Amino acid sequence: MTLWQGRFSGSLNEAATQLNRSLPVDCRLGKVDILGSMAWAKALAQAGVLESQEYETICQGLSQVLQEWEDGTLVYQHGEEDIHSAVERRLIELVGAVGGKLHTGRSRNDQVATDFRLWMLHQLPELEAGLIAVQRALLGRAESDLGVLIPGYTHLQQAQPLLLSQWWLAHFWALQRDRQRLGWVRRLTSVMPLGSAALAGSAFEIDRQMLADELGFATPSLNSVDAVSDRDFALEALFWAALVGVHLSRLAEALILYSTVEYGFVALDDAYATGSSLMPQKKNPDLLELARGKCGGLIGRLTGLLCTLKGLPSAYDKDLQEDKAPVFEAVDTLLLLLPVMGGVIRTLKVNAERMQAAIHPTTLATDLADYLVHKGMPFRQAHQAVGMAVQRAEALGVALPEMPLAEWQAMAACFDESLYQLFNPHHAVAKRTVQGGTARQPVLHQIEQAKRLLGESA
Amino acid sequence: MTLWQGRFSGSLNEAATQLNRSLPVDCRLGKVDILGSMAWAKALAQAGVLESQEYETICQGLSQVLQEWEDGTLVYQHGEEDIHSAVERRLIELVGAVGGKLHTGRSRNDQVATDFRLWMLHQLPELEAGLIAVQRALLGRAESDLGVLIPGYTHLQQAQPLLLSQWWLAHFWALQRDRQRLGWVRRLTSVMPLGSAALAGSAFEIDRQMLADELGFATPSLNSVDAVSDRDFALEALFWAALVGVHLSRLAEALILYSTVEYGFVALDDAYATGSSLMPQKKNPDLLELARGKCGGLIGRLTGLLCTLKGLPSAYDKDLQEDKAPVFEAVDTLLLLLPVMGGVIRTLKVNAERMQAAIHPTTLATDLADYLVHKGMPFRQAHQAVGMAVQRAEALGVALPEMPLAEWQAMAACFDESLYQLFNPHHAVAKRTVQGGTARQPVLHQIEQAKRLLGESA
Amino acid sequence: MTLWQGRFSGSLNEAATQLNRSLPVDCRLGKVDILGSMAWAKALAQAGVLESQEYETICQGLSQVLQEWEDGTLVYQHGEEDIHSAVERRLIELVGAVGGKLHTGRSRNDQVATDFRLWMLHQLPELEAGLIAVQRALLGRAESDLGVLIPGYTHLQQAQPLLLSQWWLAHFWALQRDRQRLGWVRRLTSVMPLGSAALAGSAFEIDRQMLADELGFATPSLNSVDAVSDRDFALEALFWAALVGVHLSRLAEALILYSTVEYGFVALDDAYATGSSLMPQKKNPDLLELARGKCGGLIGRLTGLLCTLKGLPSAYDKDLQEDKAPVFEAVDTLLLLLPVMGGVIRTLKVNAERMQAAIHPTTLATDLADYLVHKGMPFRQAHQAVGMAVQRAEALGVALPEMPLAEWQAMAACFDESLYQLFNPHHAVAKRTVQGGTARQPVLHQIEQAKRLLGESA
Amino acid sequence: MTLWQGRFSGSLNEAATQLNRSLPVDCRLGKVDILGSMAWAKALAQAGVLESQEYETICQGLSQVLQEWEDGTLVYQHGEEDIHSAVERRLIELVGAVGGKLHTGRSRNDQVATDFRLWMLHQLPELEAGLIAVQRALLGRAESDLGVLIPGYTHLQQAQPLLLSQWWLAHFWALQRDRQRLGWVRRLTSVMPLGSAALAGSAFEIDRQMLADELGFATPSLNSVDAVSDRDFALEALFWAALVGVHLSRLAEALILYSTVEYGFVALDDAYATGSSLMPQKKNPDLLELARGKCGGLIGRLTGLLCTLKGLPSAYDKDLQEDKAPVFEAVDTLLLLLPVMGGVIRTLKVNAERMQAAIHPTTLATDLADYLVHKGMPFRQAHQAVGMAVQRAEALGVALPEMPLAEWQAMAACFDESLYQLFNPHHAVAKRTVQGGTARQPVLHQIEQAKRLLGESA
Repeated sequence: MTLWQGRFSGSLNEAATQLNRSLPVDCRLGKVDILGSMAWAKALAQAGVLESQEYETICQGLSQVLQEWEDGTLVYQHGEEDIHSAVERRLIELVGAVGGKLHTGRSRNDQVATDFRLWMLHQLPELEAGLIAVQRALLGRAESDLGVLIPGYTHLQQAQPLLLSQWWLAHFWALQRDRQRLGWVRRLTSVMPLGSAALAGSAFEIDRQMLADELGFATPSLNSVDAVSDRDFALEALFWAALVGVHLSRLAEALILYSTVEYGFVALDDAYATGSSLMPQKKNPDLLELARGKCGGLIGRLTGLLCTLKGLPSAYDKDLQEDKAPVFEAVDTLLLLLPVMGGVIRTLKVNAERMQAAIHPTTLATDLADYLVHKGMPFRQAHQAVGMAVQRAEALGVALPEMPLAEWQAMAACFDESLYQLFNPHHAVAKRTVQGGTARQPVLHQIEQAKRLLGESA
Repeated sequence: MTLWQGRFSGSLNEAATQLNRSLPVDCRLGKVDILGSMAWAKALAQAGVLESQEYETICQGLSQVLQEWEDGTLVYQHGEEDIHSAVERRLIELVGAVGGKLHTGRSRNDQVATDFRLWMLHQLPELEAGLIAVQRALLGRAESDLGVLIPGYTHLQQAQPLLLSQWWLAHFWALQRDRQRLGWVRRLTSVMPLGSAALAGSAFEIDRQMLADELGFATPSLNSVDAVSDRDFALEALFWAALVGVHLSRLAEALILYSTVEYGFVALDDAYATGSSLMPQKKNPDLLELARGKCGGLIGRLTGLLCTLKGLPSAYDKDLQEDKAPVFEAVDTLLLLLPVMGGVIRTLKVNAERMQAAIHPTTLATDLADYLVHKGMPFRQAHQAVGMAVQRAEALGVALPEMPLAEWQAMAACFDESLYQLFNPHHAVAKRTVQGGTARQPVLHQIEQAKRLLGESA
Repeated sequence: MTLWQGRFSGSLNEAATQLNRSLPVDCRLGKVDILGSMAWAKALAQAGVLESQEYETICQGLSQVLQEWEDGTLVYQHGEEDIHSAVERRLIELVGAVGGKLHTGRSRNDQVATDFRLWMLHQLPELEAGLIAVQRALLGRAESDLGVLIPGYTHLQQAQPLLLSQWWLAHFWALQRDRQRLGWVRRLTSVMPLGSAALAGSAFEIDRQMLADELGFATPSLNSVDAVSDRDFALEALFWAALVGVHLSRLAEALILYSTVEYGFVALDDAYATGSSLMPQKKNPDLLELARGKCGGLIGRLTGLLCTLKGLPSAYDKDLQEDKAPVFEAVDTLLLLLPVMGGVIRTLKVNAERMQAAIHPTTLATDLADYLVHKGMPFRQAHQAVGMAVQRAEALGVALPEMPLAEWQAMAACFDESLYQLFNPHHAVAKRTVQGGTARQPVLHQIEQAKRLLGESA
Repeated sequence: MTLWQGRFSGSLNEAATQLNRSLPVDCRLGKVDILGSMAWAKALAQAGVLESQEYETICQGLSQVLQEWEDGTLVYQHGEEDIHSAVERRLIELVGAVGGKLHTGRSRNDQVATDFRLWMLHQLPELEAGLIAVQRALLGRAESDLGVLIPGYTHLQQAQPLLLSQWWLAHFWALQRDRQRLGWVRRLTSVMPLGSAALAGSAFEIDRQMLADELGFATPSLNSVDAVSDRDFALEALFWAALVGVHLSRLAEALILYSTVEYGFVALDDAYATGSSLMPQKKNPDLLELARGKCGGLIGRLTGLLCTLKGLPSAYDKDLQEDKAPVFEAVDTLLLLLPVMGGVIRTLKVNAERMQAAIHPTTLATDLADYLVHKGMPFRQAHQAVGMAVQRAEALGVALPEMPLAEWQAMAACFDESLYQLFNPHHAVAKRTVQGGTARQPVLHQIEQAKRLLGESA
């Protein structure tokens, strides 16, 4: 039994019914749908559509439906279209024909848009908590690993030494942008369509501000046609998820590398590693690979919904029904992934000795060039002189710190014995005191800021 | 209990277990996994790894696991990783330690790639049947609607009259390409990885050609490293699905337009239309809108898997686990959608009178230009003369067939009374006898070809 | 000649040079690159790296390079890598070896990220102006078309009558979200990487706050590793563009429909319509179709860059070079498209009579149900009664307003003669006075708000 | 001056003209457009539309236009719409009004579809040559590096030893699929739309089979409506490009890793590596990173065109104009990238000693389990026993080959001294003689097959 059978002589084809019904997906909206209906009943009572007694009857009925939904005892009928139909049908079973008054002056068009936004608003704190869990793990590492050096890479080639804490914090700040972005998602989402009816606005005297307050929205929507057709908030949520996915994938990629036998910089805890069905020795970073791999699906879901929305002509088109599955899946993915990422980071073991030993003397080449700069040579020439020295050392088959002074001086006459003091990565790090740099002081400054942002005493 | 616990001292974190396990998705592979294992047991027996008695015991055990899987009585354990683990675990429960011999010389890497390909091969006939169902509906319309005229559109503006059959057949041919493409997907998919083990090839004397024959693959794979890492077949399937989605979306869009009150060309059957919860009069083309809207998701799934595969370095990376869900969802979507599209097309009512009446006289403007061409005027001038006539008629506020001869002659002196005979769309259609054109004869020719391709007597 | 030849013995392969060079794309950054270099020279002077005279020499040289770039007389060398190399090379040509001091303490990694952000910041006002131009056109229509009725559609089926102004305003508000989103893009973009050097921070005493102030950034970046690797701002810009594209595509789709001969609601101005090479009568909405079609490319560019960034391991990877082309193309597309959309809207002719005449009496069915509600019938029953009446009228072959009272009363006894007064779409519109509804008063309220947002006197 | 001005009173707005014109993109089609026109003129002559003399005049004119196009001296007019207009305009300038006869019976709709397909057909040999160049490089390495061992990775963790040649060949076979796919693209592309006119078929007696033969198409299209609206061939080309991109990105990622100082397996030739503007020591794999990064753009272009095509209603919509730029860009990208990839592979230096030394003894764990299997232990137990041995060795801090026999026997009693012979990766490799495995013989077999496929004497 659908909500709209009156006008039809035949009934919907069985395969068509399966294709059409959104209940398997939108049943998750049960709670917010009922909360929305309770508020709507209140608005109808204020508008004089419901008698006070009717209002109470409906509210009690809805409370019971909510209870059943939460207990998992709400039974759906074969072919039932959606959660809105199921709730209304069950309400009428419980309270009788008066339940049929609830849908006065509203449409599933404004109802589902309201439900979906409300559901999203309710998820935001948990999503933010997930981000914070990873941030805390990163910040924890930044604090506990302070003083450890790691080769810094560009193009995956060793570039310059870094404080490992600086590297952890780089990922902290990417997630901090994601947290800020979540505030923007909230702002876009916290606009209430209810009262817009099918597309023209309700013909009853509904106090929409009261509705918004009741449900926790910042504001009612401004235009009824836009209200039922706008899915920007869902796209924003998917874009947010895709960006979080990109950030996690980059962190995961690096940790996958660092946990290879070739790098050996970190070792995953047994609680966050898996094995092979065939090869007894394997200890695999499956969870990090999933963090990287699931990013593809998050991007695909954003792409898919953008594509679905493109070129939709009228206020509400059924295509919009495809909006919920990708958002639900993206939220589920991240609620599963974020805590695991936090766990991986928190529990891995850093092999500080190996990291530091891995720093190649050539990563100090920039400091050699700077040394020449301090002696007055233009940087471009200094760069070339040091580049040639690197090439010369390679040709001689000696490490840079072992190359004789005469060879250095052949490249730039102003080299003297003091150059050999540069081959200490700690010195190189200590010189980067510029704001945001890798020296201890700007790193400590970041840690303080990070703590403040997480609400921890700095 | 996992397949790989030996090397680990701790057990996997609970959240990590949830993230890691693919069983909720890959349990669909139960049947093909067991078929693959039966063939594998045979190969092991031939290779002398299994005694004849052991082989029979294992096969009987696998038969029972298959029965349980098909009956839905196969019980999975909490946190069980994947269908491969579940089948092996259950086998050992049933037949004892000898079951532990089954995994000799293979890996889940070659096993899952084999399972997934085999599953896909098993789906292909059903997917082709779905395409054929829509093709049959389109061909049926082309036959039954023969003789009906419809305005043909470019830029959604009326362009030239068409036989409605020609229009239906246009969509037939698009789906015919999809059928051909399915053959290409089959070719790419019908390559068997089994025997490639983790990545280096099995160390036992496995007869891979026998395995391929047993399982119905065209050929074993050529290189063990490629075999466990290649997911081109899954991408091909998703691209195929996206293209079918695009084709259906275009057909759906047109039918949505044609069923508006403004066009009024077709009326959907009540069995394939739905209503509104608020507006009692509504009869909505929801199913067609879903056909259009779901195209977005199909595109998104292709994008997502392409993105997941990009830049994966080694033979098998866990990211590959993300390959199955999008393919399963795409296949499910089309298996649901195709029959409904067939039903919509088969049952809709064509309003032939309304279609023909809608043909605007200006759609014969090309024939007017051709008329001038036949009188010797270069087409480019003829085009301009007719264009000016159209503008003139608009300015005069008369329809083209009502514009006096003098006005026509002002545009081109060679116009005479015979021009008025051109204002018959049937004539315009009849002139397009070129191969593939809209005249009756090339349309009948297409119908014959189409019948042959569907295996119907032409 | 590259910036880095010292360390290499061979020179770059010719094809590799072509692949590697970004100059054909990033030459657009010439101006911002030079502005960045001027600020950097100032910072170097403050840090004591440049003598005051050197600083002036370099600034004069850079001014001349800027002049050449703006005049289009800056000549690039064969195979020159990028705009940074070209500017430095030209500077040294002009001022001699002292020019080689400019790159002290910075890297192309922080330089290009700074350039790109600065370029984007400079585009934002123009992009906002583009949005505003369309908004002004929409608002202008909302004002000038006030009082005109149009059928409102859901599922592209007539749903309820609307004020045409309400429909125009729906699109206004979508673009208003895009304007707000532009503020968010600005916030993310206005973070200055300069001073982060390759990834570890500059080893010279650079006053980064001064640099940010000089260049017009809100703040320096917080972490040098994040600063050179973060491309969130580019993704935000592409997501913004994709959303604008979606909004324009939806508006375009509707206007394409409304300008068909079947709808006939609007007529495009000749200045914004095109013709056919073959069919003399055609007047095509090409520009609207391009607005719709280009949305695909905007979505694709977002997808592409997300995919490129996924899984990048180290601080700066060359893959990041692929960030600029899609952003430049997206910005160019919108700067071309937005003014045209404004023009199309501003100049089209609304056929108010045709619109109003098109409103089907069944669009008042909801008002009939509400009528029964006011008589005390629960809405769900009222909906069914009216649905059956619609079906009955169809069976009788009469329009709803012509169906005899007895038929109505057979559906619901409480129908009386007053029902016939409902068949006036103006009344239906006038009843939707709820906030955001389609009645005159909430529409006027929106117009006031819209004017305020555009800085016009309300 | 456009081809369609007759019907219009005003002229196109300047910004609209810029948006509308496709000439900057489709001017690349000049040659194929003219070839198509020459064939068309022949068909018109055969159909009696052109006198023999007229035909010759037009052909001579077209030859001259072609010459001008090839010389780069063909001048376009301000605002000229597209290459078709430009060619026709220039033809008429050269030969007079008779040139205006050329467009008789055709439309830009069938013309551009024909041009685009013809252009694509002309690119296919060069694209295949690009693939072959990389395949040759891979095969060359497989031959020259025969005998070299490399650790094989799954999950980027060392798994089992491989012949390096097997690894190179894995990438060879992926590209071989791309070559086969190119054949499928050719088949879809080699269908000629010409003669379909705007959408209804030409009204003149055109011999379309002759046209197809003349232009080198396999067959004329079957249905005029489908012919002007079908862009499957362009999507196939983009999908092909995206897949090539994915394959190259995976190879690139691995080579980027292998060329790090941590792996040290390969060294890029100076002709295929670049440096840093700041860090004098850097030698970066920029070209490989671009191969990886550009994959994102290739995926994005496919996504974009799929999205553009979704839901297009009528035979030809202007949205289709967006089909060419992404295909041109994808083709250009690969024609640049493929030769460079070939060069990188051909010229890099393999550090065979380092590779072999890197093979960790644990990669022989599977062989240890197989050893137990050969002694009769079920594999699952053998796997567990060896896993525990790996864990034990780790706890003892000894390498597997140094762990005393007693420890081994504590895990499985049947271990004896012969186990120590397993710690030779050459033996492990030699055992994988299964078809497609990594032993010398199946690798040589692949090399033979590969040579045959490249047309080299095996």
